[in-house]
Amino acid sequence: MNCFNELPAHVWPRNAQRQDDGVVTIAGVALPQLAEDYATPVMVIDEDDFRSRCRDMARAFGRPEFVHYASKSLLTRTIARWVDEEGLSLDVASEFELDIALRADFPAERITAHGNNKSDRFLRDCVRHQVGQVVLDHPDEIVTLDSLARRYNVVQPVLVRVTPGVEAHTNEMIATAHEDQKFGFSVASGAAWDAVRAAHNAENLDLVGLHCHIGSQVFDADGFKLAAERVLALYSRLHSEAGVTLPKLDLGGGYGIAYVDDQSPLDIDALAASLLAAVDKTAAELGIEPPIVLAEPGRAISGPAAVTVYTVGAVKDTQVGPHSWRRYVAVDGGMSDNIRPALYDAEYDGRLVNRFTEGEELPSRIVGSHCESGDVLINHIDLPDDVQAGDYFAMPGTGAYCQPMSSNYNAQPKPAIVSVRGGRATLMLRRETVDDFLAREA
Amino acid sequence: MNCFNELPAHVWPRNAQRQDDGVVTIAGVALPQLAEDYATPVMVIDEDDFRSRCRDMARAFGRPEFVHYASKSLLTRTIARWVDEEGLSLDVASEFELDIALRADFPAERITAHGNNKSDRFLRDCVRHQVGQVVLDHPDEIVTLDSLARRYNVVQPVLVRVTPGVEAHTNEMIATAHEDQKFGFSVASGAAWDAVRAAHNAENLDLVGLHCHIGSQVFDADGFKLAAERVLALYSRLHSEAGVTLPKLDLGGGYGIAYVDDQSPLDIDALAASLLAAVDKTAAELGIEPPIVLAEPGRAISGPAAVTVYTVGAVKDTQVGPHSWRRYVAVDGGMSDNIRPALYDAEYDGRLVNRFTEGEELPSRIVGSHCESGDVLINHIDLPDDVQAGDYFAMPGTGAYCQPMSSNYNAQPKPAIVSVRGGRATLMLRRETVDDFLAREA
Repeated sequence: MNCFNELPAHVWPRNAQRQDDGVVTIAGVALPQLAEDYATPVMVIDEDDFRSRCRDMARAFGRPEFVHYASKSLLTRTIARWVDEEGLSLDVASEFELDIALRADFPAERITAHGNNKSDRFLRDCVRHQVGQVVLDHPDEIVTLDSLARRYNVVQPVLVRVTPGVEAHTNEMIATAHEDQKFGFSVASGAAWDAVRAAHNAENLDLVGLHCHIGSQVFDADGFKLAAERVLALYSRLHSEAGVTLPKLDLGGGYGIAYVDDQSPLDIDALAASLLAAVDKTAAELGIEPPIVLAEPGRAISGPAAVTVYTVGAVKDTQVGPHSWRRYVAVDGGMSDNIRPALYDAEYDGRLVNRFTEGEELPSRIVGSHCESGDVLINHIDLPDDVQAGDYFAMPGTGAYCQPMSSNYNAQPKPAIVSVRGGRATLMLRRETVDDFLAREA
Repeated sequence: MNCFNELPAHVWPRNAQRQDDGVVTIAGVALPQLAEDYATPVMVIDEDDFRSRCRDMARAFGRPEFVHYASKSLLTRTIARWVDEEGLSLDVASEFELDIALRADFPAERITAHGNNKSDRFLRDCVRHQVGQVVLDHPDEIVTLDSLARRYNVVQPVLVRVTPGVEAHTNEMIATAHEDQKFGFSVASGAAWDAVRAAHNAENLDLVGLHCHIGSQVFDADGFKLAAERVLALYSRLHSEAGVTLPKLDLGGGYGIAYVDDQSPLDIDALAASLLAAVDKTAAELGIEPPIVLAEPGRAISGPAAVTVYTVGAVKDTQVGPHSWRRYVAVDGGMSDNIRPALYDAEYDGRLVNRFTEGEELPSRIVGSHCESGDVLINHIDLPDDVQAGDYFAMPGTGAYCQPMSSNYNAQPKPAIVSVRGGRATLMLRRETVDDFLAREA
């Protein structure tokens, strides 16, 4: 069997499989059929996969509400309802995400509001709807939120976002004293401690804990542990100086997923166990009550749940050296529906999903249809040499940060999103049309 | 006078000026007023600037129709009408851009269709509406387009896109024999010659010339000249082997503009004169008729015509070294409305537009409001130290590739575009709303 017919289980949605006729289904729904019904590109999301990852996280961190789904990775009202039904909490990072969540009837008390530059409207909406937590990111925000809470006669629970000087990227952890970024209050400079005291002293704010975030696509617990140690020192100081015990510690998200075959996804059970043990141990050493650990996965829930199906178009062989060639395989989407390869050098995998292939492997590049040479989806992939126009090609791992960052470059309409479960497909978000664009023109 | 109060004329729209009260106007319309009327971020486009750059190009290249405005840089129906009224031709690179152009009643005979992976629908629309030229990019396309033209009983004028092995980026020109890119037919490999013959021999295609494109933000004529030499060799060969004189040569776009004060925009008159002279000279050496030179500016017309106005929010000082600090100035947009800094390390300039400043310069970074540390608009800028929340900050040069590549990251609605002329503001594209997003949900 040609390896190109396999669907690596750690990369593809949990309910993806290739049938005996070579056609790939997800949750029993054939991808070629969805391509025909909804046009390509189309994003197909495996509802049970998404929900099962919510439950994995809930189990790993102890209770569903300790896990905050990061809505920035993928948000529609349906997604918000799935998250709600699984009992998870929800992170929003703008008044617009909050608006969508509330219009999906997501319980406000399980919403946490983030943002380095929250608008006055966003803060007011948080207080007015009594969201569960606001993560404070700036001294002015402490003052503004306290006065808003007073005006609405409520006490607003808050976290303070601190920067502990730990940055983790994939296999590298950087520990520094300085923080050259827009988020949070620096632990090293003393700004974090000032913010903790200000939030604690604000009459209409209830400081429930601290928040930090160390990076994206992290595959190792060390960075989280070091950050927890540095942040817990502030818990200890607040306890000894003011007798206050903060009940929560939000260590952010960033859990790595496998985009391609040779990556291993983070073992979330092992990571959570190691993290919780580290927090308990550090708390014991500091002589404080261990706080509840909150986690904020986005990509680790939505990313692997979806694939994007494209139609193959122009296939072109190009000489790239005296004796070397590269095959360019163009699909009918590109940097408009997935900017991540161009933006972050993100890697993706892909397979033909309409048939078996017996072709020989050939160094190839998957490119889009946009009028730009950097419009690349997979920079290097060995593809079978029988890929041809009209084939359906699906890329797994596109559930996170593809649709939210999608554009209308070259006036390309954004793809539909279709959810699949138990053999049934349901349209979640219809494909855009040129009429949608023109409706905004005066 | 603090230099931060100046508006460098080569970077700002031609009708921008700072009034005696410190407020910046474009075409007599005060930017703070537009910010209040249309909410921020808002893109403001100087209609006369845009039109004057169309006329500059027309003058430089001899006739308006020789200049093809690249609609991918910015396209609404109003923009298409401006381009039409100035007599320019229009490039489209998808069936969707073609659709918008036709719905703006842009004359089809002045439309040129591009694309490395044109859909069947796109090719059919081109033939059906009799667009002026289709730029062929793949052997299959020659066959398909010929047969479509036969079916519709027309002769379709075409160009063949060739890759001459010249790549120009800003101050660097790379000349190679190989072409590792998705576009066109390689001159070096012989594919270009095969395509030229196939297009020439196709009964329902009329080969009118060749097309090449050497890069973006080019500031020097050398790359264009070398490309022209290599491409004209094919004209000569076709002339000697088949007695055919191709009337046109499309040298693409890529004319550099000044995004920041210390850049100089390309002198388009000088470039065009040098290019046209080089084509004439090479043609004379080859003993062929010099073809008409076509140009495809996008950025050089739309880019400098617009500015984006933001409201300043959180201002935060961060220690980045033992004795060095950086000021983070957050605005109410970011990578959603301008992905270019994050995607291409693109540079931008910016000024306060609501007042004079007498502040001292401070190393600063302009960041957006998105939940991502890479959400940076200007990585390094010396800003006056009195910038504060509520100020209006405008970035010039945002007319090209910002709106077309904009996303709804963090559910951020896309900004409005407002055109200004003779003291009057006209809404061109209204701001998106969350209701727009929800309308697509099933």
